[in-house]
Amino acid sequence: MSTAIYGASGYSGGELIRLVDGHPEFDVAYLGAHATAGSELGEVHPHLPGGDRRLGTLDPDAASGVDLAFIALPPGASAELAVRLLRAGVAVVDLGSDFRMDTPARYESAYPDPHPHPEELGTWAYGLPELFRSQIAVTRKTAAPGCYPTSVVLALAPLLRAGVVAPDGIVVNSVSGVSGAGRSVKASLTFGAVAESVRPYGINTHRHRPEMERALEAATGIAASIVFTPHLVPMQRGLLSTITARLTGSGAAAVTALRGAYTGEAFVDVVDEPPQTRWTIGSNRCLISVHPDERSGTVVVVATLDNLVKGAAGQAVQCANLMMGLAETSGLGAAGWMP
Amino acid sequence: MSTAIYGASGYSGGELIRLVDGHPEFDVAYLGAHATAGSELGEVHPHLPGGDRRLGTLDPDAASGVDLAFIALPPGASAELAVRLLRAGVAVVDLGSDFRMDTPARYESAYPDPHPHPEELGTWAYGLPELFRSQIAVTRKTAAPGCYPTSVVLALAPLLRAGVVAPDGIVVNSVSGVSGAGRSVKASLTFGAVAESVRPYGINTHRHRPEMERALEAATGIAASIVFTPHLVPMQRGLLSTITARLTGSGAAAVTALRGAYTGEAFVDVVDEPPQTRWTIGSNRCLISVHPDERSGTVVVVATLDNLVKGAAGQAVQCANLMMGLAETSGLGAAGWMP
Amino acid sequence: MSTAIYGASGYSGGELIRLVDGHPEFDVAYLGAHATAGSELGEVHPHLPGGDRRLGTLDPDAASGVDLAFIALPPGASAELAVRLLRAGVAVVDLGSDFRMDTPARYESAYPDPHPHPEELGTWAYGLPELFRSQIAVTRKTAAPGCYPTSVVLALAPLLRAGVVAPDGIVVNSVSGVSGAGRSVKASLTFGAVAESVRPYGINTHRHRPEMERALEAATGIAASIVFTPHLVPMQRGLLSTITARLTGSGAAAVTALRGAYTGEAFVDVVDEPPQTRWTIGSNRCLISVHPDERSGTVVVVATLDNLVKGAAGQAVQCANLMMGLAETSGLGAAGWMP
Amino acid sequence: MSTAIYGASGYSGGELIRLVDGHPEFDVAYLGAHATAGSELGEVHPHLPGGDRRLGTLDPDAASGVDLAFIALPPGASAELAVRLLRAGVAVVDLGSDFRMDTPARYESAYPDPHPHPEELGTWAYGLPELFRSQIAVTRKTAAPGCYPTSVVLALAPLLRAGVVAPDGIVVNSVSGVSGAGRSVKASLTFGAVAESVRPYGINTHRHRPEMERALEAATGIAASIVFTPHLVPMQRGLLSTITARLTGSGAAAVTALRGAYTGEAFVDVVDEPPQTRWTIGSNRCLISVHPDERSGTVVVVATLDNLVKGAAGQAVQCANLMMGLAETSGLGAAGWMP
Repeated sequence: MSTAIYGASGYSGGELIRLVDGHPEFDVAYLGAHATAGSELGEVHPHLPGGDRRLGTLDPDAASGVDLAFIALPPGASAELAVRLLRAGVAVVDLGSDFRMDTPARYESAYPDPHPHPEELGTWAYGLPELFRSQIAVTRKTAAPGCYPTSVVLALAPLLRAGVVAPDGIVVNSVSGVSGAGRSVKASLTFGAVAESVRPYGINTHRHRPEMERALEAATGIAASIVFTPHLVPMQRGLLSTITARLTGSGAAAVTALRGAYTGEAFVDVVDEPPQTRWTIGSNRCLISVHPDERSGTVVVVATLDNLVKGAAGQAVQCANLMMGLAETSGLGAAGWMP
Repeated sequence: MSTAIYGASGYSGGELIRLVDGHPEFDVAYLGAHATAGSELGEVHPHLPGGDRRLGTLDPDAASGVDLAFIALPPGASAELAVRLLRAGVAVVDLGSDFRMDTPARYESAYPDPHPHPEELGTWAYGLPELFRSQIAVTRKTAAPGCYPTSVVLALAPLLRAGVVAPDGIVVNSVSGVSGAGRSVKASLTFGAVAESVRPYGINTHRHRPEMERALEAATGIAASIVFTPHLVPMQRGLLSTITARLTGSGAAAVTALRGAYTGEAFVDVVDEPPQTRWTIGSNRCLISVHPDERSGTVVVVATLDNLVKGAAGQAVQCANLMMGLAETSGLGAAGWMP
Repeated sequence: MSTAIYGASGYSGGELIRLVDGHPEFDVAYLGAHATAGSELGEVHPHLPGGDRRLGTLDPDAASGVDLAFIALPPGASAELAVRLLRAGVAVVDLGSDFRMDTPARYESAYPDPHPHPEELGTWAYGLPELFRSQIAVTRKTAAPGCYPTSVVLALAPLLRAGVVAPDGIVVNSVSGVSGAGRSVKASLTFGAVAESVRPYGINTHRHRPEMERALEAATGIAASIVFTPHLVPMQRGLLSTITARLTGSGAAAVTALRGAYTGEAFVDVVDEPPQTRWTIGSNRCLISVHPDERSGTVVVVATLDNLVKGAAGQAVQCANLMMGLAETSGLGAAGWMP
Repeated sequence: MSTAIYGASGYSGGELIRLVDGHPEFDVAYLGAHATAGSELGEVHPHLPGGDRRLGTLDPDAASGVDLAFIALPPGASAELAVRLLRAGVAVVDLGSDFRMDTPARYESAYPDPHPHPEELGTWAYGLPELFRSQIAVTRKTAAPGCYPTSVVLALAPLLRAGVVAPDGIVVNSVSGVSGAGRSVKASLTFGAVAESVRPYGINTHRHRPEMERALEAATGIAASIVFTPHLVPMQRGLLSTITARLTGSGAAAVTALRGAYTGEAFVDVVDEPPQTRWTIGSNRCLISVHPDERSGTVVVVATLDNLVKGAAGQAVQCANLMMGLAETSGLGAAGWMP
């Protein structure tokens, strides 16, 4: 099956090319980019065997014959392109944020401008296969989740469903490597600014907080309320969320709920020891550990993943596999790399 | 005035030597160490101008003539040494954890073995000058706080005192550079294990949690309850605590309480933007920002410092200045270094 | 075909498991280790999907039924094991240094002790396929080159063969990420010692210098003389050699010689711009650039590769493919990862 | 004495502020900057205690009353400013490259445009105090050396003077942390591009090569010929040069020549073991080791320093001390920081 990758020059785009090139059923028929349109692939991604491949523009017509398009563009940039690809009969997995919300109100609580295609909101599958597999399998349009929401929703949904944690007063602190901030060139992303420093940002205002609440509600029917503080840390890849919630059931029930939820899942493992980000780098895995505390009546849940794989390109391929009727793990080896 | 530094070969010890060498009133009369006793200073700390200085043993008699001794040894290793130095008439600032608790019960809630000198507990000043200045100024024995508690207690005490946050359900997530784990040689501290990874540890069990609660109670009279999750991040120095608490007063009152508490303090600044760890590296400063959120009824407080300076050696010198009747800022320039 | 991996717990061992697990023709039948024998794979390499795999000992009999064994053990540790495996009919690719030299004298110029099986020296293929492909294809025993020699020999052999550089007075300066120093636990490999520092080591004494000269002589018939200075730099993977040699032909001839030598090679590319280490990380590629300088009459050649892939496990698989009659690129995708 | 710092917003500028603020005789009377003129100091350098200080423009008149001006501006940007400051009676230490060369021809061999004040070339002292102390002590205008030349000229001058190395065929390979590339914002300096990578650059064309040859000729009367290859490595500070030269005297004579040259120097130490960059970070020290090799008839010399201190701001202060008749070490503590 042929695919197009729009937004091929970013970090997620590069990771999509790596994964689709190695996929047994998909191949890359078109690469579209904005500022780097016209460049050779090897100039933009010197780690990829470029051959004579070249990046084209973001023109939707350029990919009108493909089976499926991946879009990895900044907020606001995928809506129009996605709609035109769908009209041309192309299935779409959008790694951007334009179709993750279910209503215009929710969208506007997270993003500054009105949505250009509000009629589309609520009609896309939310691309978290472990929780929304059946919807993804039957749709032509999937909105892949944000990196932070992937970790948090996977960790919390089973606990909320089981009624073992309170839905209010949930505190989420996350750390992310800088590739999560994209490949743009700004002072705050220089090595001199990032190395040997941790930077909290988006306190009380990060757009992934409403996305987490929307996805948890869709997955569990429960309206959870989260305080979310993300931090940039001096590493390239990797994301880890530390979630603290009030126990309403026993600690053992919390452990059981999480273990039970992911038995048999290829990419989510509930582990005993707190996982480290590097254990998932390069793979599509999400590792979760659960730490109930009788003293305080709380549970700490740790969830970690590679923000460019399970948090972006890997999960997008996982969704595309489902949409195209392939094995969900196709092209997604479970091995990461270390060191 | 002459000082001794016991535990001179660790990271905190090296930082003490740097600061005391540069201090206008103190000089280093004795350097004591455990495994490296007998070594030249330049072998152990090649960044310091060693001259012909050499490390001695941990023998308390070796420093019996000095005015003040700094002790930077692991948990359990300073108690006996400190008691013998005090008996010899030497004032002591202990950077270790042996005298931070006020009662044997509290001590045993954090440390595995009974305290060797339980009669001493509660008789030491807790060396956080901004909150316990008057006690430190009149004592001969000060227990310098842990690095995490310094950041958390400075951030929370004014809010608890002002009654603007609830004392229960406080969630503290902290990150620290690896120098916070000391200079020991273990697999988990190799570059291959640390670089490009974040590692949560000590979940629900870290001994700094009871210390925070003890210090907050001493400073405010309020028994706060904290859930504390620390993380190692791939950097050498720097510590940042992100504190989430329920507002019981207005957000503005929280900001006012914190700003008011540290007006005129040389080393604590309440800033508008969330501070980054690198802004404090090399200096004795602690930077704090306050972020109330009406939606969730919570406040996020960020506090950052250099774990080896305000979190260890710098704060110890600040205490020693007070104990010896010197200007509190003596030998503690406010400038850090960057990058 | 079934393989065994001896030395499975090190960084090269982990990389071998990753590559062989993903190989279409090979599978891993046995994992042998020294200190970690008995452990689960997932404890030793948490980035690999362990399943219920467990590490065994270094006993050669444990793998007597496999087709081929990879050995990734420290200097001196593979000789006896390799000989016993060969006697049991198992083909061997040794990633260690025991069989890279051709004579006892050469071996003793690099290693402190006499060789335990001097009769074997000179009977092993030197596993650099681009230069010794025909020997590797017909042997049952291949000594995979060291990481530094791989970069240097690939860069220099075509220039020496073409007679465009002088064989004496060649200066090689190399940098390597710390995974090149192995996974052992020592003070010099802690994050605190490695981060933010560059460390030259083994000046005039590194054992890879004689190996480079031996391999260049075998490849070109010319006895070259090299001054070699390696450096550790604060990164996990990646190796880059900067070679300065006196031109005896024209600069253009140097460029032509190198380009011509590797036309059609899957894993060696001669590029225009000086390559960076990250361009090869995770792939089996070696990138080389050539910079003649008329002013000084010299040429600077830069060669870079991933020390754990083309410098170790990837090259070992490439050799094994040749030995087993498979396509040389089998199981070795050309894509690396970034960032 | 009052000083002005032009170019206050860069990394060298920030380091100048740190050092001059801590200097017992100098104070900062004016801070001039280009793009950040008008900003508060604390916004530009959050690690410095800003107080209410604000950056002004690059107007020379703004500092006409000061005793001495430091200029830390990019190539080509200091010439006019320096000339106007001199005319206004202000002594100048230029950290930029505009006055390091002695003739227009030499200048044009390194820089693309003709010099705007060719009459000034050759009239400035070359600010390497250990080799040009007497000139610096009597001048009003000093050109502080480049960071790479400082390391290389200190290492080679004594060997050339003593006639123990050949002046031709000298190979210099250097590595530098990214602060050496300045604080500008470009794709090649983002964390994603720098971390986990080494990048050679400026091969055969770097402008510091002619500067090294000019300074060596001025110091020794000998026209040396150097092949120079610099590399960026993933660290913030630190520079290390590895120099390989042909021995014309004995190895012992080389060691003696270097040790003898720097006996009694406060900031240059000849050490036995190869030094690491981190040993000098934060201090004004340069560490040198010498490694003769009988086998190859060569000597490897390693020289390391902090590119922002001995390679820039520290050396500039050392020169200013000499020019103003102060103790050369004034304001320049020998202690660095670690880790």
